[in-house]
Amino acid sequence: MKGGATMVKTEQIQLRSQGNSQVIDITEPVGKIVVGCGLRAGVVTLFHVGSTAGLTTTEYEPGLARHDLKAAFERIAPEAGHYEHESTWHDDNGHSHVRASLLGPSLSVPFAEGRLTLGTWQQIILIDFDTRPRNRTIICQIIGE
Amino acid sequence: MKGGATMVKTEQIQLRSQGNSQVIDITEPVGKIVVGCGLRAGVVTLFHVGSTAGLTTTEYEPGLARHDLKAAFERIAPEAGHYEHESTWHDDNGHSHVRASLLGPSLSVPFAEGRLTLGTWQQIILIDFDTRPRNRTIICQIIGE
Amino acid sequence: MKGGATMVKTEQIQLRSQGNSQVIDITEPVGKIVVGCGLRAGVVTLFHVGSTAGLTTTEYEPGLARHDLKAAFERIAPEAGHYEHESTWHDDNGHSHVRASLLGPSLSVPFAEGRLTLGTWQQIILIDFDTRPRNRTIICQIIGE
Repeated sequence: MKGGATMVKTEQIQLRSQGNSQVIDITEPVGKIVVGCGLRAGVVTLFHVGSTAGLTTTEYEPGLARHDLKAAFERIAPEAGHYEHESTWHDDNGHSHVRASLLGPSLSVPFAEGRLTLGTWQQIILIDFDTRPRNRTIICQIIGE
Repeated sequence: MKGGATMVKTEQIQLRSQGNSQVIDITEPVGKIVVGCGLRAGVVTLFHVGSTAGLTTTEYEPGLARHDLKAAFERIAPEAGHYEHESTWHDDNGHSHVRASLLGPSLSVPFAEGRLTLGTWQQIILIDFDTRPRNRTIICQIIGE
Repeated sequence: MKGGATMVKTEQIQLRSQGNSQVIDITEPVGKIVVGCGLRAGVVTLFHVGSTAGLTTTEYEPGLARHDLKAAFERIAPEAGHYEHESTWHDDNGHSHVRASLLGPSLSVPFAEGRLTLGTWQQIILIDFDTRPRNRTIICQIIGE
């Protein structure tokens, strides 16, 4: 094995979200950053900056994206539930924080031969749980060779 | 500190799963890939290719593996629930997709002195949520020195 | 792009936890390790060693940390529920294992210009789900340049 040509490249994806568990497909901008960096193989570390949204993958189609994922999070952390967070800050997004912590802010996706190793029906998504529109930043950092 | 000898190695683990929230211990094949790459320290990025299974760790014993984990996912996304995904595709695995998105497709496990930094009672597992037997591919990518 | 100066540094964070879904903010020790390694950009892979605690991020304030996160995990895996794990080992922490597997043991946080890319109100936390006080080890591995 040869080595010694590994490098780090840190980029950002910026987007506007509507909140309320909106699911946003970010596969295309992530793929463009991978192609643009010109590296052959490595890992993309995605990290959402903030505590009311998270990252995962899904088959991005309207049923899952607009209904089914939100319904599951409503079971885990109901919007109308009682949250001490809301007593602390007098706001309305306790459920948003809980959902985001459970989903998690980071996702690591390998790439090889210049392409993300996603399945055909597998897209990278941000789920924004906040209760109002937000500008979001996702760090997209590549380590590879 | 010295540096400059970091390299990337991308392998795959292939397996046959029965689906229905089957829990499969993949610690041994991951460990073999780490030993086989001959690197001293680094990170293994595991990534499940597809949108109806996910990765995590657990104490791999029959109680958790065959009953308790499945029971929790049944609370989050019941098999008999209503899923718009199933209206889109006329299939039966809406709950499989939701469970997989919540668990997540990626797991990052450091290794040092040639060994995974797992606890004694901590195994790396795939949980396959699909409703039928599937052939599965897990990318196992090592970046280290 | 230049390259070839990427290196790996593996450290540990040790702490004492009270268990029972205690939330512990580990942002400061992680940040110190990043500053101490003297690297400019890269990724911190955090990994909890053991199968009854997990890692994520949250806004670390008393409402979320002492009440809201625990309440959500109580919905997913109730402490008083039935767990086959407890029949296997005659212990009482089946719910701890299930919660830890769902939250996940690993978290990947990029850093750039020597600083973690966290939001202002976003802290790195360990949630310890075990039913008794525990000594915990979190691997903190840095790959960067």
